[in-house]
Amino acid sequence: MEKRLGGKLEKIPQKIRNLDAVFKPSSIAVIGASREPNKIGHVIVKNFIDGGFGGKVYPINPNAEEILGLKAYKSVLEIKEKVDSAVIAIPAAAVAGALEECGKKGIKGVVLISGGFSEVGNHKGEKKLAEIANRYGMALIGPNCMGVITPASRVDSVFLPIYKLGRPRVGPISFISQSGAVGGCIVDLASRAGIGMNKFVSYGNAAVVDECDLLEYLATDKGTQIIVVYLEGVKDGRRLLEVARRITRKKPVVVIKAGKSAAGAEAAKSHTGSLAGSSEAYRAAFKQSGMIEAQTLEQLFDFAKIFDQVLPCGNRIGIITNGGGMGVLATDSIEDEGLQLSKFSEETVAQLKASLPPYANARNPLDIIGDADSHRYEIAINALMKDESVDVILLIILFQTAAIDSSVVNIAIRASDLQKKPIIAVCTGGEYTEMHKRILESYGIPTYASPSSAMRSISRFIKYAEHYSKYNEMKCPVPIKTQK
Amino acid sequence: MEKRLGGKLEKIPQKIRNLDAVFKPSSIAVIGASREPNKIGHVIVKNFIDGGFGGKVYPINPNAEEILGLKAYKSVLEIKEKVDSAVIAIPAAAVAGALEECGKKGIKGVVLISGGFSEVGNHKGEKKLAEIANRYGMALIGPNCMGVITPASRVDSVFLPIYKLGRPRVGPISFISQSGAVGGCIVDLASRAGIGMNKFVSYGNAAVVDECDLLEYLATDKGTQIIVVYLEGVKDGRRLLEVARRITRKKPVVVIKAGKSAAGAEAAKSHTGSLAGSSEAYRAAFKQSGMIEAQTLEQLFDFAKIFDQVLPCGNRIGIITNGGGMGVLATDSIEDEGLQLSKFSEETVAQLKASLPPYANARNPLDIIGDADSHRYEIAINALMKDESVDVILLIILFQTAAIDSSVVNIAIRASDLQKKPIIAVCTGGEYTEMHKRILESYGIPTYASPSSAMRSISRFIKYAEHYSKYNEMKCPVPIKTQK
Repeated sequence: MEKRLGGKLEKIPQKIRNLDAVFKPSSIAVIGASREPNKIGHVIVKNFIDGGFGGKVYPINPNAEEILGLKAYKSVLEIKEKVDSAVIAIPAAAVAGALEECGKKGIKGVVLISGGFSEVGNHKGEKKLAEIANRYGMALIGPNCMGVITPASRVDSVFLPIYKLGRPRVGPISFISQSGAVGGCIVDLASRAGIGMNKFVSYGNAAVVDECDLLEYLATDKGTQIIVVYLEGVKDGRRLLEVARRITRKKPVVVIKAGKSAAGAEAAKSHTGSLAGSSEAYRAAFKQSGMIEAQTLEQLFDFAKIFDQVLPCGNRIGIITNGGGMGVLATDSIEDEGLQLSKFSEETVAQLKASLPPYANARNPLDIIGDADSHRYEIAINALMKDESVDVILLIILFQTAAIDSSVVNIAIRASDLQKKPIIAVCTGGEYTEMHKRILESYGIPTYASPSSAMRSISRFIKYAEHYSKYNEMKCPVPIKTQK
Repeated sequence: MEKRLGGKLEKIPQKIRNLDAVFKPSSIAVIGASREPNKIGHVIVKNFIDGGFGGKVYPINPNAEEILGLKAYKSVLEIKEKVDSAVIAIPAAAVAGALEECGKKGIKGVVLISGGFSEVGNHKGEKKLAEIANRYGMALIGPNCMGVITPASRVDSVFLPIYKLGRPRVGPISFISQSGAVGGCIVDLASRAGIGMNKFVSYGNAAVVDECDLLEYLATDKGTQIIVVYLEGVKDGRRLLEVARRITRKKPVVVIKAGKSAAGAEAAKSHTGSLAGSSEAYRAAFKQSGMIEAQTLEQLFDFAKIFDQVLPCGNRIGIITNGGGMGVLATDSIEDEGLQLSKFSEETVAQLKASLPPYANARNPLDIIGDADSHRYEIAINALMKDESVDVILLIILFQTAAIDSSVVNIAIRASDLQKKPIIAVCTGGEYTEMHKRILESYGIPTYASPSSAMRSISRFIKYAEHYSKYNEMKCPVPIKTQK
């Protein structure tokens, strides 16, 4: 990790390298561990144990012998073994001392949950923390944050019970959030939708490690293929742009900026104390640096999850549906998003005419009719997979019909596994539909509740593919360029 | 029902009056009832029995003695008792004969599921059906439709099993859909979200009863307070406008039009054979007649459900949140939607300062901080209910925090029950959040997954209130007018 992605050869700062200790430690100390079940320091220890963390956990509490069956220590300095990482959840006044001890112990990564620093005007206290962390080269996340979740290594310092805030399965998306509350509710929302996550970080006041450091880290992180960022204010806009410009050449970055309106910026200032710029300035900057801007919370993961598919080679959409009305709505959305309705090749039309019932129109949008079973979907998907005039397949499945059954899911997954062209699904409905949506999602087929939300995401997907193709080689039949 | 709503005194056509027989019959014949479990005619009889329909059900099948424990008849003419309504699900060739018999029997309402008419070019066959129905003054829904659901009277002629297509609870929204498939999947989606429905009609080819007739009926229907319409093509645009203009003076009508783009219109033509007009023409017409246009399927019920609250007296929004970031996003959305962030009165500010912890800023957006419990929500809600500079309360509740519990739901419902000003909720999250969202929805508090989707709906709500106030008196402290 001696080379910055796409940048000049230079040494990565120690605090960024040391983020490894935060995300995948072999051992962790919980400073402020408690025997009382409703204390944060208790929930964190419990989450590490119950969550199946494979490494060693050291509860630190000067007044306890044992916490949740683990031997407790008065200080990290008492521990004989090497400790990679610490989570700190103690009153603000005691934090500096504990952090100094972490430094002495050689702990490389610290997640500092405790509040009581710059967010309440205690800038001096926060400066001191930064001084200590920087002196030891520690990667300090926080203070005033909700912590970190790494599903693969079972690191989970978020102190909210699992019934209130669901934890995501392992996936390709890493999500960094300035706000703990917004970040937490988005993680919860995404988990329920079956979206996988690689790393989640709520970085709070960013006394040491900020959004740019995290982006630098995630840029070369193997598990992270897609980056999602929730921003309120930005400390160093120029650096953010520079970092983003490098990263988006390799990995998509989806960003949402709160506090873009004048009144919103005022509210943000009172919330995190961070300066918010003008809406236009941010928008232009995001675009220029290749970032994908979401306007709403819903769009944040709608846009991100689509990148689990192979990148498209153009903007010609082929639509398959068992509900004619949904095909009409999807076609409307194609125009709204400035995309193109593919014109099927003559071979495709001939083949569809030969294999589909006569009342199914062999053209785009391909309405295979309400009585379509999984086999008819297979015929349609295979035909569009082969057709070089289709860059993206939009697969609309209404699971309410009598003829459809779950096997259509396997057919979609098999086609998507060929990694030839992206398959995006639309399924609108209740519990039965939701069940199938989650299976599709868990196999990397992004699934949307409506044609319009799917098409909005596809347009971002195609735009990014164009951007990406400028810096990388893509396996496309023709060089990628959106056809007009 | 001798007077049209807001129109001149004139007799309502018989086919519209007879829709009562379709939506709330005392007895129903199922023509095409079957003993075979996978036949439509079996599922329909079963749905009436299992669904708790209180009236009589007469299965009609010339080859059966008994179906699902009920005596079967060879024809409706064999039944001695009076029959209000019939559902027909038999091959196209036999429909005219069966319909003629319904007429002779004095059946007033018919839901004709069978396809095989104008949608496959059999215009002659469809014309004949219309001739028969009109001769007897029957309210004929269909052909080629998915039928009708009236949750209150337990009428359910939709032939899809409940595990595939969920049925809604009773509520104030009636939904008419040209497309059966789109209609069905929206019903399914809405049911899962806990949205109540009064009537659902998939009206298919509209051989006799069309969207205008249904609108006329719903205009004076007591159970229906909000009307939702999914349109592909319109037979008589002038009449639709005229009817809508009258209805929207009393009841909100939310409409989505598929086939607005050139390509979409082409697709719609092939799907239902109906003519689709230009996007701009429709948009202008909807606006002119006071209808609320949804651009996406998600917006359709997002917009509709907000009308379960009292109408707002202005556009000044007061925001309460336990997550600062969400307050910032909501404030951004206020600007996006052209609404106004309320400036709290001095009394409100003073009262909030006295009752809330010092670190909670007593201004709008009101961030009552992540450690807010239900009591703190109560203080905030009460203060904003009293403040005359707040027209709409946006209540953001992040259920992920440690301090919040379910009792906040009661507090919101109690305030909403006062019917003083609208309370709109935003709850973003997973299962725990979803559980509370459904309770809020079932008590008529519209709940959204993000501040932006809430604010988009609020803007439609306020616009409609202005429209409504031109024709009706409203109990507002000042005459309604959106403040700038």
